[in-house]
Parts: sequence; structure tokens; C-alpha cells
Amino acid sequence: MAIKLYGLGMSTCTARTMACLHEKEVEFEFIIVDLFGGENKDAPFLSKNPFGQVPVLQDGDLTLFESRAITSYVTEKYKGQGYDLVRHGNPKEAALVKVWMEVESHRYHPSISPIIYECLVYPAYGRTPNQAVIDASVAKLANVLDVYEARLSSSKYLAGDFYSLADLHHISYTFYLLKTPYADLITSRPHVNAWWEDISSRPASKKVLINMVLGDKKE
Amino acid sequence: MAIKLYGLGMSTCTARTMACLHEKEVEFEFIIVDLFGGENKDAPFLSKNPFGQVPVLQDGDLTLFESRAITSYVTEKYKGQGYDLVRHGNPKEAALVKVWMEVESHRYHPSISPIIYECLVYPAYGRTPNQAVIDASVAKLANVLDVYEARLSSSKYLAGDFYSLADLHHISYTFYLLKTPYADLITSRPHVNAWWEDISSRPASKKVLINMVLGDKKE
Ligand SMILES: N[C@@H](CCC(=O)N[C@@H](CS)C(=O)NCC(=O)O)C(=O)O
Ligand SMILES: N[C@@H](CCC(=O)N[C@@H](CS)C(=O)NCC(=O)O)C(=O)O
Repeated sequence: MAIKLYGLGMSTCTARTMACLHEKEVEFEFIIVDLFGGENKDAPFLSKNPFGQVPVLQDGDLTLFESRAITSYVTEKYKGQGYDLVRHGNPKEAALVKVWMEVESHRYHPSISPIIYECLVYPAYGRTPNQAVIDASVAKLANVLDVYEARLSSSKYLAGDFYSLADLHHISYTFYLLKTPYADLITSRPHVNAWWEDISSRPASKKVLINMVLGDKKE
Repeated sequence: MAIKLYGLGMSTCTARTMACLHEKEVEFEFIIVDLFGGENKDAPFLSKNPFGQVPVLQDGDLTLFESRAITSYVTEKYKGQGYDLVRHGNPKEAALVKVWMEVESHRYHPSISPIIYECLVYPAYGRTPNQAVIDASVAKLANVLDVYEARLSSSKYLAGDFYSLADLHHISYTFYLLKTPYADLITSRPHVNAWWEDISSRPASKKVLINMVLGDKKE
């Protein structure tokens, strides 16, 4: 029985798990959840994820939510195939992958996410962006990216000279950031920009980014 | 050479890693960092953690930061000793541990942390708490805890009928929440409260909580 992934192509968290599944060369069935129609707040979906959000992964009788728990499960279960995103067999490198995954979760995500919501998501629902929230988040993200710039001047990727889940977890939000007026947070930092060009042009990344259409101009 | 842990006993993130080290019966040298004197923003400490925060763990030539990356490393390295916090050898249970660790990171932490900062940390520096921030966070945390209450009515701990890193990661912030005027977020929910009584009374938890003195009345 194939793995089932519930989500939406334009959703950052869904995209995170799909990029991982592609890197690991895992076949999966993709089931679109109608977020706009509120399907994720109905009982059948809530029985899969009580927080009512995508993505959800189903593997037989195991149901998982939280995008980063899903990528960890996929890299563990499919240890023997595809690209090794977590440095199996090298405990020190694996530990550094964990460190930079946590940096994404606790420093990058909390600063970039309000920018994407204010600049791209809320306007799609007719809500005016809150500039004070944007400004505070841009300042926080700039500080985080200064550390990244230094780090990426001494290693090619965040955890070392190898692409890993730590880098992959950044892709979907960064892609949307480049569609906001704050793209220069990335493009003005040479090492961060080169890292972004690299990680976003991997075949697995490109397969996912093509479906991320939030903020695209409507004709 | 013993593991070195840099931190402060009253710090929530340091406490998280210490509770894990105690559960795993790992000996470590504890090195106090003078956060109040700004030692964590000086070059020697920044070379360990470029974000200038505790905890930091040093194991030989490996330097790790981010409390949850440290606990993952410790549970992996000391697989064969102490209490099994991550369900080694049971991939499904291990996956559920990851799910609820992510829930702590992305749902519990962002709602509880502003309450602790506004009610206990900032006042220690003479800053007036921002009630609007507190109210919004209390409302968010209540929603998260409603899901916990339902979950803990069908399993004894978050990931299943076994104590795990997912529960442990909650201990230090929850301990401080009980010292704020918002303790009833925990005590008014019978299953959450019973879970709290259980996880906070483990010997490893008690060893750590005794040093968490933020918000204690000064004589
Ligand atoms: N921490 C969760 C966040 C999931 C999340 O924010 N999902 C969004 C889409 S990217 C969603 O389902 N939004 C719909 C809603 O909240 O109603 C994860 O990483 O999976
Ligand atoms: N995400 C980090 C957060 C670390 C953190 O917030 N540390 C606090 C103490 S609990 C600190 O060092 N504060 C001092 C400062 O920021 O200057 C972790 O989990 O380790």
C-alpha cells in the first residue's frame, strides 16, 4: 500500500514533505485537501490531525502530522534509498544536521513566517498587511541571516559540506520570501544567495516549487 | 573526557537538556554561563553558539547548541543506557514521539513562551508586562491544551502509553507557567493536570526543577 500524503501544492508545509519524498525517491499518493473550503476543519480530517492543518501522512495504520516529523520519519524509513538527508552512520554530522534543523524551527521559521503571511497570504483574503509586524520580523530575520552568511562562508551547506534536511526545511518559505518586497534579505547576502540558488535548483526542489503559486500575479 | 554543558540552572532550555541527561544517566560537567553579565554575547561563547544563547553541549571536538538538538544527540549516543526516551527499535512509536516533539516546538512553545517572558522574565528586569501579548498567548495556549486534554484522555503520555522526549520537552516551561496567574490553564484540565503531576515528579525532573527559581518571591 502506497504512502498517502494529504495537503495542497501551494502550502509551504506540504511542499517541505514533498521535497523530502522526492529526494528519497519514494512513490506516494497525493490527496488534495480543500483548505479554502475548510475541509481541514471537518471531523474526518480532524481525526487525522487534531490541529486541523496539512500536511498529514498516512502509511498503513500510522497517521503522522507536523511536516518536520514527517520528513524525519521518511528519512528513517527509507534509509536505504534515495539521497541521504540525515547522514546515517555519521553521528557527528547527524548531530549537526539536527542543530541546524532546530535553528530553522526556532529562529528562521518564526521570523520568516509572519512576513509570508502578512505579504502574501492575508492579502489573498482581502486583509491589509500589518506593517509593524512585517518590520519587526524583517529585522529578526536579518539577524538570523547574518549568522547564516557567516556560516555559509565556511561550509557549503548549513550542517557542513553536504546538503541535508536542515537545508531542505528552508526551501518553501524562502521561495515565497523572494516574491515579497523583502527578497533582498536573501539576494544581498552573497553566500546565502549562492546557497539558495543551489538548494532551490535541485531536481527534487524544482518538482515542488513549480506548484507553489501563492502571490503569483493573477491575469 | 566528560561531556560539558554550558548553561544556567534557572534557564528553561538548559533545564530541558539536563532533565534528558539525568534520564539517560549521563555524567556531565556543568559550566555556568553568566547570562546576567552578558558572557553569552562575548567572543568565546559566540564561537560555541553564534546566536549567543544557552545551552551549549561540548563532547570532545563536537559543539552543539539548540536544546532539542542536544536532547536528540544524547538519546542517540546513549541508546544503551538509562531510560529509552525515543523508543529505539519501534519505528511507529518513534515516529509518534517525533510528531509530539514537533507539536511542542511549533504549537506549545510559541504560545507558552511569551507568557513566561511577560509574567516572569521582563518584570525581573523592571519592564512592565504587555497584557495584550499575554492575553493573545493565553488564548492560543488554551486551544493547544484542549487538544492535549483530548489526547491525554486516550493515552497516558503524548506519544502513547510511555513517557518520552515529547513529554520531557514540556517540563521546564510548564513549571514556570504554574508560577504565573495562568496556572489554571494546566490545573483546570484533569488529564493535562494528571500528566503534569506525573512527568514533573520523576526523579530526573525533580533534580532539575529544584534549580528553577525564576519568579520565586525574594525575601
Ligand atoms: N507546524 C505545522 C504547520 C502546518 C501549517 O501551518 N499548515 C498550513 C498550510 S502551510 C495549514 O494547514 N493551514 C490551514 C489552516 O490553518 O487552516 C507543520 O509544519 O506541519
Ligand atoms: N531555541 C533555543 C533557545 C535558547 C534560549 O532561549 N536560551 C535563553 C535561556 S532559556 C538564553 O540564552 N537567553 C539569553 C539571551 O538570549 O541573551 C534552545 O532551545 O536552545
